[in-house]
Amino acid sequence: MKCIESIKEFDGYLSRYTHDSIVCDCEMTFSVFMPMQAKSHKVPSLYWLSGLTCNDDNARVKAGAQRYAAEQGIALIFPDTSPRGELVEDRDDRYDLGQGAGFYVNATQEPWKINYQMFDYISYELPALVENILALIPDAKSISGHSMGGHGALICALKNPTNFRSVSAFAPICNPVKSAWGKSCFSEYLGDDSQVWRQYDATCLVEDGAKLTNILIDQGLADEFYNDKQLLPENFETACEQEGQKLNLRLHEGYDHSYHFISTFIGEHITYHANALKNSIKNMDIMKLGF
Amino acid sequence: MKCIESIKEFDGYLSRYTHDSIVCDCEMTFSVFMPMQAKSHKVPSLYWLSGLTCNDDNARVKAGAQRYAAEQGIALIFPDTSPRGELVEDRDDRYDLGQGAGFYVNATQEPWKINYQMFDYISYELPALVENILALIPDAKSISGHSMGGHGALICALKNPTNFRSVSAFAPICNPVKSAWGKSCFSEYLGDDSQVWRQYDATCLVEDGAKLTNILIDQGLADEFYNDKQLLPENFETACEQEGQKLNLRLHEGYDHSYHFISTFIGEHITYHANALKNSIKNMDIMKLGF
Repeated sequence: MKCIESIKEFDGYLSRYTHDSIVCDCEMTFSVFMPMQAKSHKVPSLYWLSGLTCNDDNARVKAGAQRYAAEQGIALIFPDTSPRGELVEDRDDRYDLGQGAGFYVNATQEPWKINYQMFDYISYELPALVENILALIPDAKSISGHSMGGHGALICALKNPTNFRSVSAFAPICNPVKSAWGKSCFSEYLGDDSQVWRQYDATCLVEDGAKLTNILIDQGLADEFYNDKQLLPENFETACEQEGQKLNLRLHEGYDHSYHFISTFIGEHITYHANALKNSIKNMDIMKLGF
Repeated sequence: MKCIESIKEFDGYLSRYTHDSIVCDCEMTFSVFMPMQAKSHKVPSLYWLSGLTCNDDNARVKAGAQRYAAEQGIALIFPDTSPRGELVEDRDDRYDLGQGAGFYVNATQEPWKINYQMFDYISYELPALVENILALIPDAKSISGHSMGGHGALICALKNPTNFRSVSAFAPICNPVKSAWGKSCFSEYLGDDSQVWRQYDATCLVEDGAKLTNILIDQGLADEFYNDKQLLPENFETACEQEGQKLNLRLHEGYDHSYHFISTFIGEHITYHANALKNSIKNMDIMKLGF
């Protein structure tokens, strides 16, 4: 893991790293904001998964999250949205498939399966790497994301309920097996059996019994992709109601799909995660916290 | 004046406009954030002048200012950094001259003088336009900016002390007549007579007797352009000391020239301007405020 950039911000440091990923079989880039508090003790972390076409830089520049993370004393981890590089499969004619569009699944199909193992990368490889090297409390991590990254946050939490302390999402793709984006990309990454797709679909996972303490979702009502039925939070809400899954779905009049929407509500999401993370470390062994 | 985009953010609206500028003799683009408070009454405004290579979009996406402006109930005006367009002179081989690099002066030299009248545009034409159409209190405006835009903010305030209620800057070019950027661009825009340059140089203006109530400047000590002697806040500080000009120059260990530096301190700048603006409207005619 090599630090290629470090910028002071809110008394902490926003750094960018590259490393050789085993699961994705290529060099991966990610960013981390470490708050000032990490100078004296280990801190909890919040993973942010970005949407289609983004890399690790978009949210750290546009979301306005570092200010709140600095106040709360939590680290922010910004992974990339896919494997990258000249040797990594891509589809130049598609913004929603290939590089920048990994959909946070473990691909099973040629030619994607060699590199496109984003589910394992986000769930296991990256946390193990950063918790080993940075002042992060193991087992005190939460996850959030936007659009394709909101989908990623939901499935990462739902598939491993003990892995993340809390989950939230902005305008997530809630039911990819029923959206145009999801159908098109899942068939490429996962093949034609739509039963397999259900394993990476938040709505299906809830229908199939996955259960979390709580889920927070913000959705703008002037969001073009919401209105195009790409996001389908109503399907997720129905599944949660039917299965008794607690969900706080907030619909916001007039807000669109952009980072301006995210920046408006990111502070509330970070407070939500910080509370869950602080509760989770209350009873932890003091040695684990590194005080 | 035509609205080409409007995005909801922090309960207010971030909108982008185009209009035919008389002083710049071309179509100009700018953005405005109108806080929620402007729905019921006119609000004060803060002009933000961006740096080299920027347009009206950079600060509105990266600075994190809207959150604080929404809290304080002040509008943000984001002008472009130069005239633009196919018919507007440019220098493709230079990032620091031509489009994106107007230096907020009124050019006197060919071929620049037809369009490059940014001083008059920022000081007179744009305020008159937006105050006529939007819910802004006339005569309740302040100004800030970054790098070349910090220079712009300082000279706009110093040359017309009654035009803006308060001024601040992030890493401003404080003494362009002595910096490489300034020498190279002022000779293009203003000709070879360096006495003329003094009229657009904050340090020279203070030396020559301009006086303001107060000036706030933040400068990072890990800023490559500070270390390259492009910014020269020390010269400005000396002039202020000699002339009895009040200056709060804050030097910040470890901070660079980026928007991450700006985002760290923008909240304090907006509070500073909001206080000055609120004082300035205390004794205004209630009709002018449009309550």
